Amino acid sequence: MNFREAADQLNRAEQLDRADPLAPFRDRFVVTDPQTIYLDGNSLGRLPLSTRERLHRAVDEEWGGELVRGWAHWLDIGRAAGDVLAGILGAHQGEVVLADSTSVNLYKLASAALDAVPHRRVIVTEEQNFPTDRYVLQGLAAARGLQLRAVPNVDLAAALDDGTALLCLSHVDFRTGAVADLPGLTAAAHRVGAMVLWDLCHSAGVLPVGLAGAAVDLAVGCTYKHLHAGPGAPAFLYVRRDLQDRLRQPIWGWFGQADQFAMGEAYHPVPGIERFLAGTPGVLGGYAAWEGARLTAEAGVPAIAAKARALGRYAIELSDAWLAPLGFSVASPRADHRRGAQVALRHPEAWRVCQALLDQRVVPDFRTPDLLRLGLAPLYTRFVDVHTGLSRLRDLVLAGRHLDYPEAHARVT
Amino acid sequence: MNFREAADQLNRAEQLDRADPLAPFRDRFVVTDPQTIYLDGNSLGRLPLSTRERLHRAVDEEWGGELVRGWAHWLDIGRAAGDVLAGILGAHQGEVVLADSTSVNLYKLASAALDAVPHRRVIVTEEQNFPTDRYVLQGLAAARGLQLRAVPNVDLAAALDDGTALLCLSHVDFRTGAVADLPGLTAAAHRVGAMVLWDLCHSAGVLPVGLAGAAVDLAVGCTYKHLHAGPGAPAFLYVRRDLQDRLRQPIWGWFGQADQFAMGEAYHPVPGIERFLAGTPGVLGGYAAWEGARLTAEAGVPAIAAKARALGRYAIELSDAWLAPLGFSVASPRADHRRGAQVALRHPEAWRVCQALLDQRVVPDFRTPDLLRLGLAPLYTRFVDVHTGLSRLRDLVLAGRHLDYPEAHARVT
Repeated sequence: MNFREAADQLNRAEQLDRADPLAPFRDRFVVTDPQTIYLDGNSLGRLPLSTRERLHRAVDEEWGGELVRGWAHWLDIGRAAGDVLAGILGAHQGEVVLADSTSVNLYKLASAALDAVPHRRVIVTEEQNFPTDRYVLQGLAAARGLQLRAVPNVDLAAALDDGTALLCLSHVDFRTGAVADLPGLTAAAHRVGAMVLWDLCHSAGVLPVGLAGAAVDLAVGCTYKHLHAGPGAPAFLYVRRDLQDRLRQPIWGWFGQADQFAMGEAYHPVPGIERFLAGTPGVLGGYAAWEGARLTAEAGVPAIAAKARALGRYAIELSDAWLAPLGFSVASPRADHRRGAQVALRHPEAWRVCQALLDQRVVPDFRTPDLLRLGLAPLYTRFVDVHTGLSRLRDLVLAGRHLDYPEAHARVT
Repeated sequence: MNFREAADQLNRAEQLDRADPLAPFRDRFVVTDPQTIYLDGNSLGRLPLSTRERLHRAVDEEWGGELVRGWAHWLDIGRAAGDVLAGILGAHQGEVVLADSTSVNLYKLASAALDAVPHRRVIVTEEQNFPTDRYVLQGLAAARGLQLRAVPNVDLAAALDDGTALLCLSHVDFRTGAVADLPGLTAAAHRVGAMVLWDLCHSAGVLPVGLAGAAVDLAVGCTYKHLHAGPGAPAFLYVRRDLQDRLRQPIWGWFGQADQFAMGEAYHPVPGIERFLAGTPGVLGGYAAWEGARLTAEAGVPAIAAKARALGRYAIELSDAWLAPLGFSVASPRADHRRGAQVALRHPEAWRVCQALLDQRVVPDFRTPDLLRLGLAPLYTRFVDVHTGLSRLRDLVLAGRHLDYPEAHARVT
């Protein structure tokens, strides 16, 4: 590529940014190092300015100043944030609440679903589902003597029959960003009388989910990716309203108890979504999830999803032009409606490329064995970021700089 | 009481404070309103200055600046804090880790214990145990068709036999502050071959626990009371080392998986205490628990416990002198070694008294139906605070001001 072509490319990225209606949202996030291109918002989202202020206030003024009286504010965070999330996920008010971690919520809801249909003996999931989902289901199947069928994506609908208790899937594949057919698979499960539990970790806040429209039974998801709630913030759970009083989750903690502070003898789960709570909720992470959800709702999921598609298209276009000749292939769906807010690139040296790229101040993610995952969080990722990130990637592979890095890929993120 | 007697009393409180070796620790905590007497540190501990700084740095610099690379620090918080807690609890390194909430940890450990002895069909607890403990055990018993025996304190040892799977108790009674005989009841459970699970919420950080000395099997506890970790901070769990690889907890999440980021097909729990983790841990609360534990370890549990006893003695002495004539009785044990860091006062109008006292800028706690609970957190409660708090209580009841308050006691803390 000559100088003129390079200038044209950069020009085009800048034009796309100027035309981006969400561009002003970048200023709502903390960006301490503008030279670093952050393409890992699908692992940990950036810190919103409003969240920084909220957390400082919660620590200094509420905990530090109000002490135990702060619970007057804190007790309702999970439900208030849940109502904002309900809007984001296309659910009704009162169907979503913050609670625990995604893993614990998966366990609670899958367990509740299995209890509701004890005569059905099979759980179906996708063989490439996120590890914690598969492990939690393995544990439940082992404890109950159920069969866990982990099948390839294309065989999912065929795997369902009247012995299926639960279909548990991720809406967006964590490796490739492929979007599952949530309405179709939900309907397929319902046709055989099975319940469905969706993991929304990679779609919540960035794609339309349409829980109510698809009559989804159950869902869980984390808040620290596209909901910008920070490391280890509480997850959320969703239970369709008509199921709430029919289902009982297994962890009978005091936050799920009716009239909690009467501290009565027997556990009587509170009506509504709060019966899926267990213990004392995390307050700081809860505030962060609430702020992140508000920011997302303000921008609006349709605009966010449209920009995710445009960023993905642009990343694929540059990858085809610059990276395909260097041995990279696009592992994500090319059709916009089938792709989440990420583009995964396959390369046999993906691990070393990832390490070299970090040293070029581009932060992607590696997923074993050979994927470089580029998160394209629409609220703060610019087209020029994609341009700069991928041009640094191209230049380092062209120069063979990744070959200076060790091959081992034991790592912690 | 005449003016001279009052002056003598105050003088004595000030003398006790001057002789208190822990007095300087009060300056390590945020105190925004010195006119308010905070006697609820056993519900929510004060904010340490070092924790405020740590949380600001974690938000602004680590999340805001390092983004996903922050996991290089964050991944080990639960274990590092656990090792500090192990020292505080008289356990060995590698036997304690931060995780989830107390309720979820109770569920995980009780479930693991019950799985280990499937032929034993009875869980024993104390009928006045904290509600979430009783509810969680009710849920486990219902799911497995086991019997839950909730018996009076004095009948506990007699309730144990070779059908007992698990004895689950609180070390310190949340209402009265009565300390259970942890070594004796642990030995009694072991004599019949049962496992024991202690809830340390009201003793962790303020009393010697001696987990290793008593060969306790399992324990859980929160960090937001006498460990000063803030609202909803993660709880901890303890599993004796020789049991760790024999037990399996039910929530097979990816943070309990060996070689987590290999994301392999089957769940293989990691050796050691981390197998009792489930999902992504809360980072902000984790830092706060770690800081709070460090501050506690610095002061030392023996010194903290000695001051708790002295504060309790002093509160009981003032109560006998000032409050007994007004209808209050001491509901906490009078013997120092039998009492946690609180004094509970019984009064038929405890709810109204509690409301009136809050308006006099004294923060106690009410526990239904008739207890006024005075928390005496040794690291920041002064003898003059006890003096001021109880004199305001005396004066308002003498004047009948509590009778101006409504009798209803629906409340949220």
